[in-house]
Amino acid sequence: MRQDAGTRLETALTEIAEAIDVQFDRLLPVPEDQRARLYEAMRYSAIGGGKRLRPLLVKASCDLFNIGWESAVRAGLAVECIHVYSLIHDDLPAMDNDDMRRGKPTAHRAFDEATAILAGDCLHDLAFAVLADERTHADATVRCELIASLAQASGPAGMAGGQMMDLVAETTPFDLPAITRLQLLKTGALIVFCLEAGAIFARIPEDRRTSLRGYAHDVGLAFQIADDLLDIEGDAAVTGKAVGKDAAAGKATFASLMGVEKARQQASLLVAQAKDHLRDFGEEADLLRDIADFAISRSY
Amino acid sequence: MRQDAGTRLETALTEIAEAIDVQFDRLLPVPEDQRARLYEAMRYSAIGGGKRLRPLLVKASCDLFNIGWESAVRAGLAVECIHVYSLIHDDLPAMDNDDMRRGKPTAHRAFDEATAILAGDCLHDLAFAVLADERTHADATVRCELIASLAQASGPAGMAGGQMMDLVAETTPFDLPAITRLQLLKTGALIVFCLEAGAIFARIPEDRRTSLRGYAHDVGLAFQIADDLLDIEGDAAVTGKAVGKDAAAGKATFASLMGVEKARQQASLLVAQAKDHLRDFGEEADLLRDIADFAISRSY
Repeated sequence: MRQDAGTRLETALTEIAEAIDVQFDRLLPVPEDQRARLYEAMRYSAIGGGKRLRPLLVKASCDLFNIGWESAVRAGLAVECIHVYSLIHDDLPAMDNDDMRRGKPTAHRAFDEATAILAGDCLHDLAFAVLADERTHADATVRCELIASLAQASGPAGMAGGQMMDLVAETTPFDLPAITRLQLLKTGALIVFCLEAGAIFARIPEDRRTSLRGYAHDVGLAFQIADDLLDIEGDAAVTGKAVGKDAAAGKATFASLMGVEKARQQASLLVAQAKDHLRDFGEEADLLRDIADFAISRSY
Repeated sequence: MRQDAGTRLETALTEIAEAIDVQFDRLLPVPEDQRARLYEAMRYSAIGGGKRLRPLLVKASCDLFNIGWESAVRAGLAVECIHVYSLIHDDLPAMDNDDMRRGKPTAHRAFDEATAILAGDCLHDLAFAVLADERTHADATVRCELIASLAQASGPAGMAGGQMMDLVAETTPFDLPAITRLQLLKTGALIVFCLEAGAIFARIPEDRRTSLRGYAHDVGLAFQIADDLLDIEGDAAVTGKAVGKDAAAGKATFASLMGVEKARQQASLLVAQAKDHLRDFGEEADLLRDIADFAISRSY
């Protein structure tokens, strides 16, 4: 059973990762003019890297409501555009100043800072261009709701707001409630979008998305705690980015505030809670259950 | 007659500038948490500055088709969000490294680089959030077309692509056709969006927007040539930003490639051409005619 679930998840991850790469490749042909370097930087950061966890979550939420593959892939592509743009900008010297990402030099290291800033900005635009296109869904009302939700989840009330809090956390002590709120914004908001995407496509009203949001919150925090633990115990060769950074920066994390063992227990609890949110769903929610387990079993 | 046109333009500029400030103020209340600095940076850059030329162009294009004030203001607000975000990012040390903008320190000088990058990113999101909202237009198809057009105009095929070319131009000699193409992307693409906004609201098919695009191209280039001339002959106290930068950087501009007198003539020609594109319109296009004249008569 564990083995089957693992294989099922791996197959799903491989399928979505391939689909995302194909889309990026099609959308970003390198022009033969002075903009070539910009497109190359976008391709460098967007293609062939990362777990593609967010597109997988979109696909899994679309599975709940029988939403077609193309819609799921395009909404997943949009959220991945936002995720990749945020990684490029967060890695900049003025922000987290990271040299490695997804096992290779960060965009500003491989290219230069100006190109990296612009490549991030362009992927940011691409997210909304993809959603606005009628291939994403025939109903423009659905597309507008996806756009409004993604813009909300990315901006100051979501991901970027969380990154601002993260910058403040470098110089101000954060307690557990503050760290939780930081992470609910920084990574949680986009994950909530992923889970809501299926419901938006299926025109499920907002007040019936509570369990999906609950799952998203719990899985998002579980992933974050696991990330903290990997930063302490992980291997840079496997994670593809520097480890030990939080401790070196003296930055409060779930693991530093709770202790490693307590944090590990908390992550397990969150995964159980996340799966409990899916209790009214049948096997159409199996992929979401597998993803919840993966949050704490992974080594990368 | 000149006086009347001038007064009419001034009234329209004042009205739209006030409306844009009111909207930014409403949309960006400063929260009482660690994100306060982010919102303050967004407000600092967005409120009370600039000519608001792009929102005015949107309003003027909406006048052509009898589009209501709220739709015009919201589409103008969206394009101003994009414009301001691009100014914040372009001013960064890694890009143009500017200290002054709109008569005050640039965002990364007044705050810090990380906050400036995030404030730009958040205004970028806000543009699409504003357009996706049904207050912009009742028909979601119209909103999606606005979003798709603005994303296209901002990204690598538009403004950001032009900024990439501008970075390349610092180290590679550009001739007149290359500079023209650079400017058509860097500033022209957003101006084309402004002119098309009215037509999108009015559901005018693309093939009937040729004269609007022609006006946008001509006025965009005229404004750029006037900017080049202000960089040579202008007063930093009036323009609100450093002057003489292009020459100091040895950067090719319309003025440096054509000579000051020839450039001035070319700008006048473009303004006449822009107004000629409006020949099939009556007095509903007067604001657009005034804006074209303003392109070359301004001192800021």
